[in-house]
Amino acid sequence: MRLLRVGPVGRERPAVLDETGAILDVSGVVADIDGALLAGDGLDAIRAAVARGGLPEVPAGTRVGPPLARPGKIVCIGLNYSDHAAETGAPEPAEPVVFLKAPNTVVGPDDRVLVPRGSVKTDWEVELAVVIGRTARYVETQADALACVAGYAISHDVSEREFQLERGGQWDKGKSCETFNPLGPWLVTADEVPDPQALGLRLWVNGVQRQDGTTKNMIFGVAGIVHYLSRFMVLEPGDVINTGTPAGVALGHPDPKPYLRAGDVVEVEIDGLGRQRQEVGQA
Amino acid sequence: MRLLRVGPVGRERPAVLDETGAILDVSGVVADIDGALLAGDGLDAIRAAVARGGLPEVPAGTRVGPPLARPGKIVCIGLNYSDHAAETGAPEPAEPVVFLKAPNTVVGPDDRVLVPRGSVKTDWEVELAVVIGRTARYVETQADALACVAGYAISHDVSEREFQLERGGQWDKGKSCETFNPLGPWLVTADEVPDPQALGLRLWVNGVQRQDGTTKNMIFGVAGIVHYLSRFMVLEPGDVINTGTPAGVALGHPDPKPYLRAGDVVEVEIDGLGRQRQEVGQA
Repeated sequence: MRLLRVGPVGRERPAVLDETGAILDVSGVVADIDGALLAGDGLDAIRAAVARGGLPEVPAGTRVGPPLARPGKIVCIGLNYSDHAAETGAPEPAEPVVFLKAPNTVVGPDDRVLVPRGSVKTDWEVELAVVIGRTARYVETQADALACVAGYAISHDVSEREFQLERGGQWDKGKSCETFNPLGPWLVTADEVPDPQALGLRLWVNGVQRQDGTTKNMIFGVAGIVHYLSRFMVLEPGDVINTGTPAGVALGHPDPKPYLRAGDVVEVEIDGLGRQRQEVGQA
Repeated sequence: MRLLRVGPVGRERPAVLDETGAILDVSGVVADIDGALLAGDGLDAIRAAVARGGLPEVPAGTRVGPPLARPGKIVCIGLNYSDHAAETGAPEPAEPVVFLKAPNTVVGPDDRVLVPRGSVKTDWEVELAVVIGRTARYVETQADALACVAGYAISHDVSEREFQLERGGQWDKGKSCETFNPLGPWLVTADEVPDPQALGLRLWVNGVQRQDGTTKNMIFGVAGIVHYLSRFMVLEPGDVINTGTPAGVALGHPDPKPYLRAGDVVEVEIDGLGRQRQEVGQA
């Protein structure tokens, strides 16, 4: 299934995209799309309701929000594509580089992204987001790890490079600014993504393609990441993992680097997971 | 006021410690102690109920949980006491070092702390926790920043030094293991902490005092931290900031460093904020 949440900011309703492309309101079936739903039998309830038919269609033009209520945490894997590690001048990591991103950075796939005040190095990163559906704690095998994945979505891991790399300390400082994590449009359930390591990822800025990668080139794949993380933290239903970005970010360009500015338009796409479009504004 | 949450894990009820030392159940007055309560008029409702009298007393021996429902995020300030920076061999930071800790690390003040599987460097850190009560976004002045603080609590920022420093990348990997953030016993409202920069912090392991500091020696004080962070992220009611630890952690000891092992007992205290006691177990 392709799950969505539609409606005004903070008052999104759960919905599902059917095979004809219609968006069906399932707020009469489940309360929200969140960790509790993914851990319980809410997905089955939505499936049954779609099969029965008669669900109200969401009016055209309704805002699409993030496809998941606010995550308990967002875990990010850094430098997880060798071409991206190379462009940033970093060595290829021997084990996953892990950092966290504030959960209140999540916005809808087509919401505005704001350049923070004082920022001159706001950068883009298309990433495959993994959404956890079952608690992962000291998971034994990579197969068990994959069984903890509820589904996938597009994540735009917006990053401020000066805050991240030049302001002392840890990367988190450049990753948690407001609006820095457009998510969606869809949460695609894992049964519809037979191979998460065979997805093309693409990103454009003002119509110019900047990233063109494939999840085949991840250094650590989805199963390995979930397996690894479960030794360092407890992953819970509704948590999100941003699995890293391929080459092509502004940081990797020769000077002058084309960092984002108010008025830019970013488009982001992953095979089978839909497409995002953000206008860039100023905080 | 000194707010608490009491009862079994995951089913804690709100309570308040009165001037006689009795713990009064306020679950008939407010639903929980969380961001929504701190942002609204829940504190006034509790104050009025206590003044009216007749609140039921919580039975002796009831477990004390964390004094705040799960935070939206936990922001940590690293190396914020010059003696601690020196003991770790790090230079004194020119601006706050910022990292995040997974919110599901929070446990009660007297709950067990688990040494992660494979860990040989689990360490302690007594810290002053700041609890946010009002949204802080690009706060103009340090006085405005302090007005966003709802109160204070003891935080034990448990840390795994190998995971944090020797396993590639960012500190978050050694900060987010399960049970790694005992919080409480009390959330003391800001009106009862006239100067957050004049609090003694102490920590003992198996009765041996290991830390003995004062918040006077913070490099960046509470007002400065909130003011600074609000330029990099939006702080929301119910968020927690761990403001750093003074000297005396195991990492700073000569070899063999006395890292925590199953069977150890850690006690943690801050002036006016109560005392914690954790037995250490094995995950």
